[in-house]
Amino acid sequence: MSENTKYKPLTVESLPASLGKIPEIASCIGADASAWNVKEVGDGNLNLVFIVSGESGSLIIKQALPYVRLVGDSWPLPLYRAYYEYHALTRQASRAPDSVPAIKYFNEQQALIAMEFLEPHVILRRKLILGETVAGLAKFLGVFCAQTAFRGSELSMSSTTKKADVALFAGNVEIPAITEALVFTDPYYKAEMNNHTQGLDPVVDQLRADVALKVKAQRMLQRFASNTQTMVHGDLHSGSIMSTETQSRVIDPEFVQYGPMGFDIGMLFANFLMAYFSQPAHRGDDLDDYQNWILGVIEEIGETFSAEFKQLWASERTGMLYPVALFEEQGHDSTPACDAVLSEIWQDAWAFCGIEMHRRCLSLAHNADFEDIEDTRIRASLEARNLMMGAELVHCANELKSTRAVCELARRYNCKDFL
Amino acid sequence: MSENTKYKPLTVESLPASLGKIPEIASCIGADASAWNVKEVGDGNLNLVFIVSGESGSLIIKQALPYVRLVGDSWPLPLYRAYYEYHALTRQASRAPDSVPAIKYFNEQQALIAMEFLEPHVILRRKLILGETVAGLAKFLGVFCAQTAFRGSELSMSSTTKKADVALFAGNVEIPAITEALVFTDPYYKAEMNNHTQGLDPVVDQLRADVALKVKAQRMLQRFASNTQTMVHGDLHSGSIMSTETQSRVIDPEFVQYGPMGFDIGMLFANFLMAYFSQPAHRGDDLDDYQNWILGVIEEIGETFSAEFKQLWASERTGMLYPVALFEEQGHDSTPACDAVLSEIWQDAWAFCGIEMHRRCLSLAHNADFEDIEDTRIRASLEARNLMMGAELVHCANELKSTRAVCELARRYNCKDFL
Repeated sequence: MSENTKYKPLTVESLPASLGKIPEIASCIGADASAWNVKEVGDGNLNLVFIVSGESGSLIIKQALPYVRLVGDSWPLPLYRAYYEYHALTRQASRAPDSVPAIKYFNEQQALIAMEFLEPHVILRRKLILGETVAGLAKFLGVFCAQTAFRGSELSMSSTTKKADVALFAGNVEIPAITEALVFTDPYYKAEMNNHTQGLDPVVDQLRADVALKVKAQRMLQRFASNTQTMVHGDLHSGSIMSTETQSRVIDPEFVQYGPMGFDIGMLFANFLMAYFSQPAHRGDDLDDYQNWILGVIEEIGETFSAEFKQLWASERTGMLYPVALFEEQGHDSTPACDAVLSEIWQDAWAFCGIEMHRRCLSLAHNADFEDIEDTRIRASLEARNLMMGAELVHCANELKSTRAVCELARRYNCKDFL
Repeated sequence: MSENTKYKPLTVESLPASLGKIPEIASCIGADASAWNVKEVGDGNLNLVFIVSGESGSLIIKQALPYVRLVGDSWPLPLYRAYYEYHALTRQASRAPDSVPAIKYFNEQQALIAMEFLEPHVILRRKLILGETVAGLAKFLGVFCAQTAFRGSELSMSSTTKKADVALFAGNVEIPAITEALVFTDPYYKAEMNNHTQGLDPVVDQLRADVALKVKAQRMLQRFASNTQTMVHGDLHSGSIMSTETQSRVIDPEFVQYGPMGFDIGMLFANFLMAYFSQPAHRGDDLDDYQNWILGVIEEIGETFSAEFKQLWASERTGMLYPVALFEEQGHDSTPACDAVLSEIWQDAWAFCGIEMHRRCLSLAHNADFEDIEDTRIRASLEARNLMMGAELVHCANELKSTRAVCELARRYNCKDFL
């Protein structure tokens, strides 16, 4: 887990010789490494990503780089994040089966993970910009969020196992620190690395003058940083999901940490809502249909999450929290307890959702959903709807009664003009 | 930190030869170890505690035992708890100066800590049973709780330092696990190791039939176990405080963990409230005066905590939470943010307080305040007041407006008969 001097970034040329003798890798690709076909497909920002193919099949080789190229210059980032990504993937695979690429090999020193090549999957965000639908998407994501939330908590795990896991992931410092600053604080004042679309100033000024909004965002930062309810993916947006027309997988859990149960699903909703608000710039006659499809996905993710969580509550409550001995074995229904836990998860989720909607337009790392809109006048007007709805979500997180109510809210904001 | 085979419990006879050559110890007691006077004063339940005196002075030598003798048989408990106690003491000493005994020496392998001998301090619980007052007690405890809460959080610490600390203390598993079971769950059903005073059944049955109460207690268990806001003492009751007539110190932080900011102060209030409710059995003519003194201490602890916390907020907000850059530097007063943080701390504190009032009468480890009352009819009637007020605190934790309001509530329960 500590930094090392033997680390060496792979290249298309060096990869076969370096990995050809590793049985876990060669058995998936082919015994004759000299015949492997190697393509580098990463964007070179954070990681090297190779597709390696041979007579037996293909694998993804992902190797961390010791920096991020986000802001022109490079930003050092520890290689040990591959260690946390590997451990996150193994836990996600066991807590939510068939949700992540299968892992074939891990080398800590080389910060390298060999995993299943997902094909013909593409990044979900691209599909949402192109107006493509994915069958079963909502069900997949709702189940993934519920299973990882429930099974990574003391509702399921023993307190001892969970404490050991919390300690392990507490070592993943620098990457979650990006979230701490960029998501929760920078959007709400003129931070150095911020940028926003020209013409958006009136709305941005209004948000940054809203002291109550900042107080709530900082409260959520404390909940994010000082709450270890479950292991969260930490960066669950539509760029961390790969889909075909009928199948989806979650990738890239480098931002893994123990955090609030409502975090992942809240970030996910935000990214669907941003896809929704950006559609008028991407669609033609199919605008209404596709926006309705997105809201349908949001609503079904919410319903699936609650249903799956209740199902796990009824069948897998093996941890120390809300034990069966205290409720069912005393003749007491634990449904009100489950409802109370879910209610708190939803309150967190809507607040995280609103904050994510802000930071993707105001802070450093923007979304292609909006960034791909070349006409800044149109982009600003759509981002304004997104920003104003985000503020309402943060302010009213405790009063929202259902995912459907949030979708209704989105329909209303989708008709408003703020600039 | 791992178990070891070289550990050997000291005896009165072996101690001088074993420790006489350790400069940090010999310089405090005297160079000629053969002239040391050694007394074993521990109760032999969890730890060996020796007072060692010589020509230069005296020290306490505390050595962990690998078991607890609580229930007749022994209950294995890891020696590594001395490691956490040592690290807790060093942090408390730096975060709340002059609040804990000075540490002179630590030996991890021997699970041994040499520390300042507090004299003529006695355990505060004994003083409360005897009707003795301690000048400055409320101020000392309010400041201790506020300083450790604030300075152990990301209001003060860097996120990186705090994560390392969270990971370190996450290894302290078995002792906090005692709290998890005995405090939050066992009181609310017929758990194996429970016991309660004869005659108390009607009240106990009523509490255990209250499903909403159990749901709230389990919610607080989740907050206790999955919340790392700050480093908590973890067992801050009147048996963990030593006082003279004018000075107090906090001892025994073996239950240390990162947890909610409201935990320590909530547990502390509960122990003062139990002292209050038990007084009719211990006092004569001085009953009213002494009960009023206890409530005055509670009220002043609350006021001191808030005042000290606000003072630290104004002067030491150097962490990532609620940064000055986001508030004051934007011309925005952060007082509403501080009030919101305090409000949440108090909500937690009153709920933890109510639960502690329950477990000390219903679960395994009772308090001398009530246990010393030989007449079980009197004991049960006083415990009933304590239990019923505890339930009101858990139910109404979010609505209580001040420590004074809680003291008024205590006065009302002090006049009621529940049996």
